[in-house]
Amino acid sequence: MNLWLNRLASPVPAGPATPADLARYELESAGIRAVLQEDPSMGDAYRIDPQEDGLFRLAGGKTGLLYAAYRLITAQLCGESILSPLSDAPKYALRMINCWDNMDGSVERGYSGRSLFFENGRVSYSAERIKTLGRLLASAGLNVLCVNNVNVHDPAQRLLEDYLPDLAALADLFRPFGIRLMVSVDFSQPMRHGIPTADPLSPDVRNWWKETAAGVYAAVPDLAGFLVKADSEGRPGPFTYGRNHADGANMLAEALRPFGGYVVWRCFVYNCRQDWRDTATDRPKAAWEHYAFLDGAFADNVILQVKHGPFDFQVREPLSPLLLGMKQTNMAMELQLAQEYTGHQIDLYTMIPMWKELFEELPADSIMSVAAVSNLGNDENYTGHPLAAVNLYTYGLLAWNPETDAEAAVTRWTRLTYGFCSAEERSLVSLLLSSRRTYEKYTAPLGIGWMVNPHDHYGPNPSGYEYDLWGTYHKANREAVGIDRTHAGTGYLDQYPEEIRHKYEDPDTCPDLYLLFYHRLPYTFRMKDGRTLIQRIYDDHFEGLEETRALSAALSRLPFPEPDASVIRERMNRQLYNAREWCDIINTFFFRLSGIPDEKGRKIYD
Amino acid sequence: MNLWLNRLASPVPAGPATPADLARYELESAGIRAVLQEDPSMGDAYRIDPQEDGLFRLAGGKTGLLYAAYRLITAQLCGESILSPLSDAPKYALRMINCWDNMDGSVERGYSGRSLFFENGRVSYSAERIKTLGRLLASAGLNVLCVNNVNVHDPAQRLLEDYLPDLAALADLFRPFGIRLMVSVDFSQPMRHGIPTADPLSPDVRNWWKETAAGVYAAVPDLAGFLVKADSEGRPGPFTYGRNHADGANMLAEALRPFGGYVVWRCFVYNCRQDWRDTATDRPKAAWEHYAFLDGAFADNVILQVKHGPFDFQVREPLSPLLLGMKQTNMAMELQLAQEYTGHQIDLYTMIPMWKELFEELPADSIMSVAAVSNLGNDENYTGHPLAAVNLYTYGLLAWNPETDAEAAVTRWTRLTYGFCSAEERSLVSLLLSSRRTYEKYTAPLGIGWMVNPHDHYGPNPSGYEYDLWGTYHKANREAVGIDRTHAGTGYLDQYPEEIRHKYEDPDTCPDLYLLFYHRLPYTFRMKDGRTLIQRIYDDHFEGLEETRALSAALSRLPFPEPDASVIRERMNRQLYNAREWCDIINTFFFRLSGIPDEKGRKIYD
Repeated sequence: MNLWLNRLASPVPAGPATPADLARYELESAGIRAVLQEDPSMGDAYRIDPQEDGLFRLAGGKTGLLYAAYRLITAQLCGESILSPLSDAPKYALRMINCWDNMDGSVERGYSGRSLFFENGRVSYSAERIKTLGRLLASAGLNVLCVNNVNVHDPAQRLLEDYLPDLAALADLFRPFGIRLMVSVDFSQPMRHGIPTADPLSPDVRNWWKETAAGVYAAVPDLAGFLVKADSEGRPGPFTYGRNHADGANMLAEALRPFGGYVVWRCFVYNCRQDWRDTATDRPKAAWEHYAFLDGAFADNVILQVKHGPFDFQVREPLSPLLLGMKQTNMAMELQLAQEYTGHQIDLYTMIPMWKELFEELPADSIMSVAAVSNLGNDENYTGHPLAAVNLYTYGLLAWNPETDAEAAVTRWTRLTYGFCSAEERSLVSLLLSSRRTYEKYTAPLGIGWMVNPHDHYGPNPSGYEYDLWGTYHKANREAVGIDRTHAGTGYLDQYPEEIRHKYEDPDTCPDLYLLFYHRLPYTFRMKDGRTLIQRIYDDHFEGLEETRALSAALSRLPFPEPDASVIRERMNRQLYNAREWCDIINTFFFRLSGIPDEKGRKIYD
Repeated sequence: MNLWLNRLASPVPAGPATPADLARYELESAGIRAVLQEDPSMGDAYRIDPQEDGLFRLAGGKTGLLYAAYRLITAQLCGESILSPLSDAPKYALRMINCWDNMDGSVERGYSGRSLFFENGRVSYSAERIKTLGRLLASAGLNVLCVNNVNVHDPAQRLLEDYLPDLAALADLFRPFGIRLMVSVDFSQPMRHGIPTADPLSPDVRNWWKETAAGVYAAVPDLAGFLVKADSEGRPGPFTYGRNHADGANMLAEALRPFGGYVVWRCFVYNCRQDWRDTATDRPKAAWEHYAFLDGAFADNVILQVKHGPFDFQVREPLSPLLLGMKQTNMAMELQLAQEYTGHQIDLYTMIPMWKELFEELPADSIMSVAAVSNLGNDENYTGHPLAAVNLYTYGLLAWNPETDAEAAVTRWTRLTYGFCSAEERSLVSLLLSSRRTYEKYTAPLGIGWMVNPHDHYGPNPSGYEYDLWGTYHKANREAVGIDRTHAGTGYLDQYPEEIRHKYEDPDTCPDLYLLFYHRLPYTFRMKDGRTLIQRIYDDHFEGLEETRALSAALSRLPFPEPDASVIRERMNRQLYNAREWCDIINTFFFRLSGIPDEKGRKIYD
């Protein structure tokens, strides 16, 4: 098992009861001499004072001391010296992982095996693996783990009912790592208990949730809160009762307030039964339309969790306008480590370059927390593809500090995980950093998204969604492709502040990679570099395939240890197949439509 | 339950041991006075001599007497008088139904509920329902029923092993109806019994099959034989051992010969892993290429069972060239009652007009038997859609006599089933007879096929197969659509005799409805009636939708009894939805490609 910190071979004993205890154990195991001073007011923050005799004085909050310890340990493992005092504190209070694990042991959009937490309808896990996971997450700075799928399928409701002792035992295991659990709840759950409604304004419903929360917090006093997916893709919610989402979220918030819990309310509402003939509806507008007018209406322990883009975790989407427009509401941005649309942990896809772009567009303090859909599973290496672990680790670094440099973060992960020599390390870091752009090149072009096989979301299907109910259309015809989302089109762009509208409104100045997200353009449209749109599509696809071949060759030269080497080789071969299919099918699709040959005479199948 | 002969309310008692006994019982129940004389040499044939006193003298073979009885009973129910002597005999010796039932109770491509024969991995049935089914099949003239799926999934092999007594008991139930069972066998079955190979030339394998056949025939002495799908879509077969299909079939034939059994060998071999970029391979050519050179090499108790068209039960396909080219081989034509590609027994689709076209192209005596994939299941009405029963019944009539008139056959079924008044009967018969052409109009145009959702095969997906592994491509681009299968193209047409080649070779004279099966043509191609190809596509689709709406209105005016009325109404609503999706999506698909508007200005979504 090759994971960052895998050189911390010593298992975490059953002993440590608090993060500070664990910090002492980890430092001692690593041979680092330190004096720890807990200052409860510091929370996650810490200060490290190096002393002249090799001793470190650490000050920090309850969890801050543990983060300080991992900071020292990773510095030591990376050969970095801490010679002068440093202080650090996370930018975001809640640094969350959302596991989409079902109690039958399956993981929705999971590509790393089965659930680490559930099997056969019960809570079921290896305590050793949970502790290893706890160390991994804490060392990356993450502090909240939602254990069950936002789509709450029976019997996951029982986590708040008769399975509550099991939830509490799991929380006990994670507690020394400073990791608090969260639970996805079923908005209609009161109806399992003889209440004929789930109306958030019903006194019976409100009381049921209050009593339930009291019981849950008696068992898990530090539960981070409830995660809710309501009125989305078939889930129940307030709309059923003619209430709005503030009514729904605030009702739960009231129940959790006495215990310091949060309601994390997912803003993923759209019409998933759209008629493809309906051009008045534009799905990316849905989140704003459903939530923006409620700004200021949510309780102070409600957090709206918004997917980073207005669609659904495509390779390239603009930042969701909702993240920019709710100044008086607690907001969290949701990322997705699980490679649902980005290669299923078969294709290499390092996400931090994408995340950096998002954070750069996001004004300071427009969000107070971050969440990411988990890429974890019970595969030996936890993330299916060994190199997909870079996404978990670097997500933690960015969640702590979004200004973290992408290359530095990937380098740190690489160094901790493989301990390669310098040239090899630089090679792997460079391959990882370019992998997203490569994937983007051979898949759907220039921000258009969705040219993927429906349902399973792997492999090309250029018209797979074109006549379906999901609101995700490209409307490619023999002349042009894309949807006009400017003021003159669907008006999606009007949901943004002026400077963003200005950046994207004009196809002549709109950044290339977002061009077909915002505009409908003829194949003969001239890009800023003089190429036509169709030639750019061909060029990107041929380049993406060539880059994948080069990636494969370069990876094969790196001295990965086993079993990583074998798994990487096997997945790389599947990526090569996938990249060729994407390249040829997308090029053929556009060639058949446009009739315009490749200027460079490369083979496009007709 | 409204089924033909449903006015024969009396259940078949446990008593009758032979078809002649059953004939007597059925005649007596119907109040028909008859004297029966068995002449074993007559087999299925019979003679009816009406006497002056209302008595009938019947002569016939063992099963012929039963067919004579049903002939008399249906005539009586239909109000037809038999005033002069008549003789009849079936055209084809084996009139087969192939059930694709799995032992877990599912039915592959089944749209009528679960299996009538299996559940939970065991033989499991209602004896009453089997007897009702026996009467239905016998009264339609059918005489062989293969009970299990040609894709032999575990544990269906056990029908020849420890489940043999269950098979024998089921055979006992069908025997009085003159229906012999057949079993689909797994070519690799000897390997379940310690033999390291299934090579048909291995003495151990040959002996295993001989011994197995002896055991099977001891239990079911009149078993019709074995049905085999080998080397097809992942099934095992002789190719594994470098043998040809004559080697494989003849080996089994040798084992069955002592008992009078047939080997029915399905000729459905093609490359189901084709690369869509490969234009040298044309799937319709596969059957001929795999089998034609073996003509004369098969044993006399082998029957090659060939799907009626070269693809796979599309709405319109030419007659398979293999059915015309194997003069020295026993051939059976395979039809499909299950509406796999023809509306899932949701959309109304009466098949006899299609079958009549096939039989008209088929020279006399080029086949010796017919088979049809079953549309049966354990739904109350046996066929899912009550009106889908017309396909089962009229298949029987054509299997007996392919010269049966389509309108007469459908009228007989309608009269036996519903007993409507004359105007209503004429209305329903007309709706049934036109239903196939309507379905054809709103689905894939002019013989091109396959524009259907992959996997489930219901609903439109114009490019669903276009980049897939199945060899079913239309290659539509902005100028043209279709595959040239003439001598100048893939050469498929060269597999036919001269007169057929001549009929289809030239697009200017090729019958319209086969145009895009044989030719690649520009959208501006002029049809024989002066319309352009693209206009013809639009016209057909709008007409198909309009006809469906008219069909719905007309059906709603007919006095169907319950539960048929409710089921028909519910399915008709789904057909209306499906027809609109097909019409609009296919028109939009071709409009986006061609850019040519509808001459009549009807709405095509862009």
